[in-house]
Amino acid sequence: MSKPISFARGAPSLDIIDVDGLRASADRAFSADPAGVTAYGTAVGYVPLRTWIAERHGVDAKQVMVTNGSMQADAFLFDALVEPGDAVIVERPTYDRTLLSLRGRGADVRMIELEHDGIDVAALGRVLAAGVSPKLAHIIPNFQNPAGYTLSLPKRERLLELAREHSFTIFEDDPYVALRFEGESLPTMLSMGGDSVVYASSFSKTVCPGIRVGYLVGPEELIARVTKIATSTYISPSMVSQAIVHEFCQSGALERSIETVKAALGERATTLVEALRRELPDARFQVPQGGYFMWVELPRGTDVRALFEAASERGVQFVKGSDFVLEGAEASLRLAYSGVTPDEIEEGVKRLAEAYAQIRSAPAGAAV
Amino acid sequence: MSKPISFARGAPSLDIIDVDGLRASADRAFSADPAGVTAYGTAVGYVPLRTWIAERHGVDAKQVMVTNGSMQADAFLFDALVEPGDAVIVERPTYDRTLLSLRGRGADVRMIELEHDGIDVAALGRVLAAGVSPKLAHIIPNFQNPAGYTLSLPKRERLLELAREHSFTIFEDDPYVALRFEGESLPTMLSMGGDSVVYASSFSKTVCPGIRVGYLVGPEELIARVTKIATSTYISPSMVSQAIVHEFCQSGALERSIETVKAALGERATTLVEALRRELPDARFQVPQGGYFMWVELPRGTDVRALFEAASERGVQFVKGSDFVLEGAEASLRLAYSGVTPDEIEEGVKRLAEAYAQIRSAPAGAAV
Repeated sequence: MSKPISFARGAPSLDIIDVDGLRASADRAFSADPAGVTAYGTAVGYVPLRTWIAERHGVDAKQVMVTNGSMQADAFLFDALVEPGDAVIVERPTYDRTLLSLRGRGADVRMIELEHDGIDVAALGRVLAAGVSPKLAHIIPNFQNPAGYTLSLPKRERLLELAREHSFTIFEDDPYVALRFEGESLPTMLSMGGDSVVYASSFSKTVCPGIRVGYLVGPEELIARVTKIATSTYISPSMVSQAIVHEFCQSGALERSIETVKAALGERATTLVEALRRELPDARFQVPQGGYFMWVELPRGTDVRALFEAASERGVQFVKGSDFVLEGAEASLRLAYSGVTPDEIEEGVKRLAEAYAQIRSAPAGAAV
Repeated sequence: MSKPISFARGAPSLDIIDVDGLRASADRAFSADPAGVTAYGTAVGYVPLRTWIAERHGVDAKQVMVTNGSMQADAFLFDALVEPGDAVIVERPTYDRTLLSLRGRGADVRMIELEHDGIDVAALGRVLAAGVSPKLAHIIPNFQNPAGYTLSLPKRERLLELAREHSFTIFEDDPYVALRFEGESLPTMLSMGGDSVVYASSFSKTVCPGIRVGYLVGPEELIARVTKIATSTYISPSMVSQAIVHEFCQSGALERSIETVKAALGERATTLVEALRRELPDARFQVPQGGYFMWVELPRGTDVRALFEAASERGVQFVKGSDFVLEGAEASLRLAYSGVTPDEIEEGVKRLAEAYAQIRSAPAGAAV
């Protein structure tokens, strides 16, 4: 089989990770604060990093807790807020792990269509007017996973209004915010909205995933409650990991790393867009302005499960759109361009187009 | 107030942590395996460390998962095995966080008296004969927290028999096993018992707590189930932390660190024993052969809450015995000697004896 090319995993390739910067940060962390790095610490996280994050967001340090990756932060937050039967709003499509995690807790998950400029706030308004009273609305505002779309400023304002009127919490899940390679940044809902918002982000996309450092920002009382859950779950997250991230941030390596990652992602996105336009003109998509992902819609009736198999035979992986919804999205797929070089993208799209041609000419495809 | 002296925290002092060895291990980890260290990895943990642990215990790697500290391993295991209302056997006294974690899950916690040679297996036998059908028995076999006692070989054998007869799982929680400074090591129940046992341990006591690396060993099917829970909770633990521990183990630094820690703990335990015999002859205790802790019983009727206050006024901290049981143990306390130097121990016991004299002569004490 040909060399495997994966558009499946939302992870960076090794060439855009600053391994030397990490090694140097580790060295400094053990020298600068041996006691803080080696001791248990507490569930709020490594205090100097917590302070750094608080300053970055212009909030009090008591509003921040740093976790073992942001998925763990989500889990703690859901443990604190979501009871079985509680209505929770999510985008359609949305991140499959969040969907699983909410369903695993018995939440009444309500998917609201995601448009090119973010969640359909009019549809959300109708659902709320009809009497649904959600605890939480989970929103990935920038370069959404899986769609790559970004929530517009007017929709951010409208969401905050709805949250205040209907007393729900907006869970602003924002791991991709720093990865904008085109266009203007928008303010976080956290900075616009205050107490209606709990914000999560991560260093997985700006430092590296294997360091497992994410964080929550929210109202002090809620953060205290979530910290208690964290304490009884794991005492504390890795102080070593968090101290390394702190040194990485302090030294300026973070800003350099973000520039490297953005430049690479921009080039990869452009390559992907051009290759798809050339090789697979049936594909419809928004040109990404940042992040890792592109949502590709194929003509109605396309059997993406068959495409998945045909691509797989050619060593090409992607995630089926249906994984990101409760039902439907059978003609869609998610392409991640974060972990593939431009050459691999060219080659991968060529093979994907071949797979597409094959399923279109096959009897099953023809019968649709 | 005098310089604070804490017998409260079960954690090592900085002087017995090999910070240079950790720094060198971090350096090597980033050089040796940059891809493995920086990528997400999986919920089974950093694969080379998993393999190292499996070899150490003579099991298949599929029987091992490496977690963000062993408390997190406990939480995943309880999520997999313990439903509300399930009977769970624990030792009396036992680790307060385990007790909280089980009660938080609605378990029907049954405490069985801990004797100087481990859990009272005859009493356990009677409870089982009376019809209690536990899912799990949580046992800390070596240098128990809080008591410091060690489970004898005949009792290990008897526990395994009971587990097979009554179809429950022994959760062998063994973070202190490597810290024996007197006497002969005993085999783990894991090595004796096979499928009735799930084993947990940690590098918190042999490398450092802030690295947050613990692990589970158990039947392959159960480990697969627990790994699934871990995946949906945090994707993966810190690969950076685990790769550092792997380098630390591989390089021989682990064995050197264990020697350092054991020598220091042995000296601290001896100092504590001698100081108590001299300054506080009312105290009854077993002389520890390893680990971090000593359980001290004061004469019946001693008000340890009052002692706690009086000691606290003198800058001395300990944990009240009552924290480790559901009820009772009012005249007991736990002294941790892991985080204090011999000089601090001498001074701390002197102050503790003063506090004891004060509460014995006070009206409240006199009235008992």
